[in-house]
Amino acid sequence: MDKITNTIASIKPLDENAMAMAKMRQDNLTKPQGSLGQLETISIQVSGIRRNPRPRITHKVIFTLAGDHGVTREGVSAYPSEVTPQMVYNFLRGGAGINVLARHIGARVVIADFGVSSVLQKHPELKDKKINMGTRNMTKGPAMSREEAIRSIEAGIELVEEELPKGIDILGTGDMGIGNTTASSAITTALTGADVTTVTGRGTGLDDEGWKRKVKVIEKALKINRPNPKDAIDVLSKVGGFEIGGIAGIILAGARYQIPVVIDGFISGAAALIATSLSPEVKPYLIASHQSVEQGHKIILEHLGLKPLLNLDLRLGEGTGAALGIFLVEASLKILDEMAIFAEAGVSEKND
Amino acid sequence: MDKITNTIASIKPLDENAMAMAKMRQDNLTKPQGSLGQLETISIQVSGIRRNPRPRITHKVIFTLAGDHGVTREGVSAYPSEVTPQMVYNFLRGGAGINVLARHIGARVVIADFGVSSVLQKHPELKDKKINMGTRNMTKGPAMSREEAIRSIEAGIELVEEELPKGIDILGTGDMGIGNTTASSAITTALTGADVTTVTGRGTGLDDEGWKRKVKVIEKALKINRPNPKDAIDVLSKVGGFEIGGIAGIILAGARYQIPVVIDGFISGAAALIATSLSPEVKPYLIASHQSVEQGHKIILEHLGLKPLLNLDLRLGEGTGAALGIFLVEASLKILDEMAIFAEAGVSEKND
Repeated sequence: MDKITNTIASIKPLDENAMAMAKMRQDNLTKPQGSLGQLETISIQVSGIRRNPRPRITHKVIFTLAGDHGVTREGVSAYPSEVTPQMVYNFLRGGAGINVLARHIGARVVIADFGVSSVLQKHPELKDKKINMGTRNMTKGPAMSREEAIRSIEAGIELVEEELPKGIDILGTGDMGIGNTTASSAITTALTGADVTTVTGRGTGLDDEGWKRKVKVIEKALKINRPNPKDAIDVLSKVGGFEIGGIAGIILAGARYQIPVVIDGFISGAAALIATSLSPEVKPYLIASHQSVEQGHKIILEHLGLKPLLNLDLRLGEGTGAALGIFLVEASLKILDEMAIFAEAGVSEKND
Repeated sequence: MDKITNTIASIKPLDENAMAMAKMRQDNLTKPQGSLGQLETISIQVSGIRRNPRPRITHKVIFTLAGDHGVTREGVSAYPSEVTPQMVYNFLRGGAGINVLARHIGARVVIADFGVSSVLQKHPELKDKKINMGTRNMTKGPAMSREEAIRSIEAGIELVEEELPKGIDILGTGDMGIGNTTASSAITTALTGADVTTVTGRGTGLDDEGWKRKVKVIEKALKINRPNPKDAIDVLSKVGGFEIGGIAGIILAGARYQIPVVIDGFISGAAALIATSLSPEVKPYLIASHQSVEQGHKIILEHLGLKPLLNLDLRLGEGTGAALGIFLVEASLKILDEMAIFAEAGVSEKND
């Protein structure tokens, strides 16, 4: 727990001075003030995060964390659990959606096993952070112990720290785990108070019957475990997942090391609920890449006060939305850095 | 007019066979079917446009057309008309928003003078398609002659044809012209029947009084000129602009040469209304990059049945939204082309 406590204690507010300087520059660029909308506000936010009025991005990293969920035994997913390790191998071979989009934006992908329920083959690109062989079935009791919940968050922090020497100017979060929308819905209900039916979607493709079953499973898990909404680690241990804890750790570490954190969809959103519940100072470091099809995601974004950059009906996870979001953040910083200002360009300003 | 007629006559429907093959491949990629939302549908659309089930993009071109508007004498813009030529020089020096975003996505920008109201200095990168020294004040009579309207569309077609030898796999449209939201609002009312107050926004930054004046100016122009909604060239000549006619020509040529046309914001939207009114066969070639802050843009997109890829509160024009949209289209095609399929990757498919 010391690692979490120390990380949180080191999170600073954004640098107001850098933000004021970035805002002044934005207002002098050769365009009507405000005409680049969210690109302007994001560039100012990132200036504050990086404590630099003209930050540049060189090193982009997407962290894709995998874990399995015991609750899949209740029939909550359209895909079998074997898909989790199969997709990890697909990531390592470069054939998944996140690999394609990371190449498109020039980012590196860090793949980590936080709790896949089988022993994965060693691979130089696979980070072993396995907490356990999948979570337990949360309809029968806690998904994991409190110690495992703490360990998963700490392992997320470690993962960022291990990558820092290679450079991280911006990071994106991603997930892979059959059953993890069920855990994310349960976390969202526990931490926002929203009804289970409003936070539960169809995951990878449930039909109506499957959706009803999933809602009942989540209701049962919450009833049996009674997670304490004032204690995010209790929520994570009772109805969470190892990769969700890991993403919460990555978010805390991003804020700690003054790195903009571009969160992906619903699973990363649930992790952001845990991270911000542990430390509200994390919020200004977050950028929501997109609005997922998963209906609970909207509730999370509203709860966190985040406006998504994209709304493309994505629901794949892996960090795919985060990759597209990183591209837009980079666009916003290039606008700030590279555009001419009125005085230099000989362009007349607005009439008074 | 022959050039327009011949161009329209050569526009084919999308290739259904290529689209069916692209759809089949999308459904076999290692992800739940439909989980990449609009990225999937866009990739299938572009396959149909390119008549190729796995199209790739190498050459990206953004056409940014400039023109002036006599109606600025009625006080409809927060910026003086001098800004139009000043911004053209800014484009040529690479200091404007569109230059930054085009570099970010690896596109070339083609800058063209379609009717700036001053004589521009020659520049190797500036295409001279000047129809006239700005339009006339549309509150006193037609903005241009019918011949000029036809010529502006033809010049847009020519511009694409001149660039074809260098390669165009996708194109984006953009505009620069102080006063051109006024013309675009008038076109939108004329061609969609929507009320002037609902299609008129604040342009580059009008206050309440300015907005009311702008609405009155547009109402007056429509009353005096009575554009015929069944005749898009009549609408363009009476309340349009040279750069708007040019963009309409670029859109027609894009469809003619089977190039996906990524339209920018409100001005490009007004041009798309003209192009689709001349030839409804153009519609399947269009991709809406973003939803502008300009309120009339929403009405245009609904009228054309287009769903924008982005909603970032942009209102700069120049093709800035189109540049970001091109990046997303490229992402969609890389997903289609580069992702592994289930059988290759040894990933289990959905449970039945």
